[in-house]
Amino acid sequence: MGALAQRALHACAELARLTETPGEITRTFLCPPSREVTAYLSAWAHDLGLSVRVDAAGNLRARREGPAPDSPTLYLGSHVDTVPNAGAYDGVLGVTLAYAVAGALRRTPLPFALELLAFSEEEGVRYGVPFIGSRALVGTLDEVLGRQDAQGVSVRAALEAYGLNPAELPAAEVRGPALGFVELHIEQGPVLQAAGAPLGVVTAIAGQHRLRLDFAGQAAHAGTTPMAHRRDALAAAARFVVAAEDLARATPGLVATVGVLNASPGAINVIPGAAHATLDLRHEVDAVREAALKTLLAQAHALATERGVTLTVTETMTQPAVPLDPGLRAALHRAAAAEGVVAPDLPSGAGHDAMVLAARMPAAMLFLRSPNALSHHPDETVEPGDVETALRVAVRTVLALAQEHGAQEHGAREHGA
Amino acid sequence: MGALAQRALHACAELARLTETPGEITRTFLCPPSREVTAYLSAWAHDLGLSVRVDAAGNLRARREGPAPDSPTLYLGSHVDTVPNAGAYDGVLGVTLAYAVAGALRRTPLPFALELLAFSEEEGVRYGVPFIGSRALVGTLDEVLGRQDAQGVSVRAALEAYGLNPAELPAAEVRGPALGFVELHIEQGPVLQAAGAPLGVVTAIAGQHRLRLDFAGQAAHAGTTPMAHRRDALAAAARFVVAAEDLARATPGLVATVGVLNASPGAINVIPGAAHATLDLRHEVDAVREAALKTLLAQAHALATERGVTLTVTETMTQPAVPLDPGLRAALHRAAAAEGVVAPDLPSGAGHDAMVLAARMPAAMLFLRSPNALSHHPDETVEPGDVETALRVAVRTVLALAQEHGAQEHGAREHGA
Repeated sequence: MGALAQRALHACAELARLTETPGEITRTFLCPPSREVTAYLSAWAHDLGLSVRVDAAGNLRARREGPAPDSPTLYLGSHVDTVPNAGAYDGVLGVTLAYAVAGALRRTPLPFALELLAFSEEEGVRYGVPFIGSRALVGTLDEVLGRQDAQGVSVRAALEAYGLNPAELPAAEVRGPALGFVELHIEQGPVLQAAGAPLGVVTAIAGQHRLRLDFAGQAAHAGTTPMAHRRDALAAAARFVVAAEDLARATPGLVATVGVLNASPGAINVIPGAAHATLDLRHEVDAVREAALKTLLAQAHALATERGVTLTVTETMTQPAVPLDPGLRAALHRAAAAEGVVAPDLPSGAGHDAMVLAARMPAAMLFLRSPNALSHHPDETVEPGDVETALRVAVRTVLALAQEHGAQEHGAREHGA
Repeated sequence: MGALAQRALHACAELARLTETPGEITRTFLCPPSREVTAYLSAWAHDLGLSVRVDAAGNLRARREGPAPDSPTLYLGSHVDTVPNAGAYDGVLGVTLAYAVAGALRRTPLPFALELLAFSEEEGVRYGVPFIGSRALVGTLDEVLGRQDAQGVSVRAALEAYGLNPAELPAAEVRGPALGFVELHIEQGPVLQAAGAPLGVVTAIAGQHRLRLDFAGQAAHAGTTPMAHRRDALAAAARFVVAAEDLARATPGLVATVGVLNASPGAINVIPGAAHATLDLRHEVDAVREAALKTLLAQAHALATERGVTLTVTETMTQPAVPLDPGLRAALHRAAAAEGVVAPDLPSGAGHDAMVLAARMPAAMLFLRSPNALSHHPDETVEPGDVETALRVAVRTVLALAQEHGAQEHGAREHGA
């Protein structure tokens, strides 16, 4: 394995030691070890000759300027926070690979600036809302500054307590021309492994619906109540689970998950009078997801009505799909092909910072295969060979963008002259 | 309404005031208010000229001797313990109606002894095992004397602490000839109300299976795991709920209930790696119940296997059906017909003391309609007119048995002479 890929993996191992919970990897937004993460990456950035700053949202931004003050910037990176008891690669590997890319290109002239982003927050653990770091770059962090964590500390207060100044948030926003954002990230799913592919190019971040479904029937004696007299809330909810699985199985690319299902009163010999279910529905095409939701809600209401059960549906999240940039995706595909690497298209069922930055600039993602799909788990891992491959593809992509951009610049200058 | 039916209902109201939890009706096995119940019923028994004793299991037994020392005994009664936050009639009404029957027949010569039973325990609340009272009459209380309540107090220790002597349990057993046991009880279900019938004659106590089903799959990310790659434990469990409902709906008399269903880890965006369900399956014919169980288990295993989920089934209870005595049932039907009362046959989906006594003597049950099927609930009620009707049918049944038995006795004497 090349020294830089090795360096990126070594950095993941070193950063995994920085945790707020001994014995596991846990780094939530602005926890004390975040400072050590910043120190570690800052030292590396200095070694690479980059300037560093911590913006008002706690993001570490290491920058190599472009040839001119108005040169556009290519952004690379991911997040450095984690879920509780996490693995060592989710987010972090995308940051350390960005540093490795910068290392590989250290002595290569580029027609644009390069900015390496280590987002302070993406997982949504502390505030129940994700992307606090990347929101700062697109100017939407204000919307959540008032949110409170479990201890009643607002995002604003947490920033201040950490020594950051919320008044300086506007300076965290991307202002100048942006060439794009490329995020490398582990897949966290089984698709690439099943396809025998080390890498994948993300087509879109799937749109998402999240619902709570409350079925209310009538609790009754399991022995004395004939089937025809029941108003069994759980029976209705169970049929809804089946309907959701059936529809998703029959709709390419759709995933439907009932992650929560409870029956009350919850006794072996009592017909459930209430059942509470959730639905998580995702697809990369909004129209497909919306049609599926409509179908499932109609089925849920019919299943409830059929048994004299009432149904209350509460939508807790609706998030449209975010298609990623066709130009950057094509560049990733060309680089993979040039490296002789199989890198199929796939959607991302999970949200990522690239989704947030896509509102401001072309954005793309390169996924690394997740062995056994393990993620958000201490056993999460990556194949070292895949890391090497991802680094080569990323470097080649940046070089290709440089060539393309240089040619455009050249062409623009010629035409402008 | 007749004075005696009124007296029976008044006694229910009085006994409802004797509770271990102020503001609700709660009387578990050997709780302090049990002594007041015994005192109340003992006083009533004395008024009726009956002898009373408390047996070693805490059952109150009020007795009117027969014409001869070897006269058989007709037993009437039910239980006086309750579930937590109970209604006023479950069990208790069967006891107070038995007293009312004795009152109605006070001056009527009978060719047998009459024993009114107020069982100390039937609901199974304190020890998780029901029928402690009636078990003493058939000699099976020994099996559970070592069981402990939530405080670690054994049944034996509880009896001793209450001032009873477990060594005297053999004297609680029914020894002499028994004509039978007739238990009046509220239906606790919707069947009689739906049929427009005040009373019903119980054909059998349904047999019962209780199972725990543990489905183990693989927790995974709801967004990144395509349907084909899932090992969703809840999806398998939900299909099992549907299979159970479908089979029970298609099988006359079968009731199947999934009262408990939980998914782990139980997060909206995580595919459940584990699901725990229960099954309560009842039918008055054992072969029907056993065939249904076999079908459902085969379906459950197939549903699990189909998605790479493993299934562990734990049987927590198996109880054969107990057919009630055809002779006593016919006597109840004749009495109801003579009173001009509609009293259809129906099985009992719930267990009752009659089921235990059926091992030792002919047993029968007369159900009273349960308005809105409310039971084990503070709003549990009965129609006063139904109580009056039940009393008339019960008295007429005892008189018919007396006539029948007198004729037999007479015949036997003539032949023996």
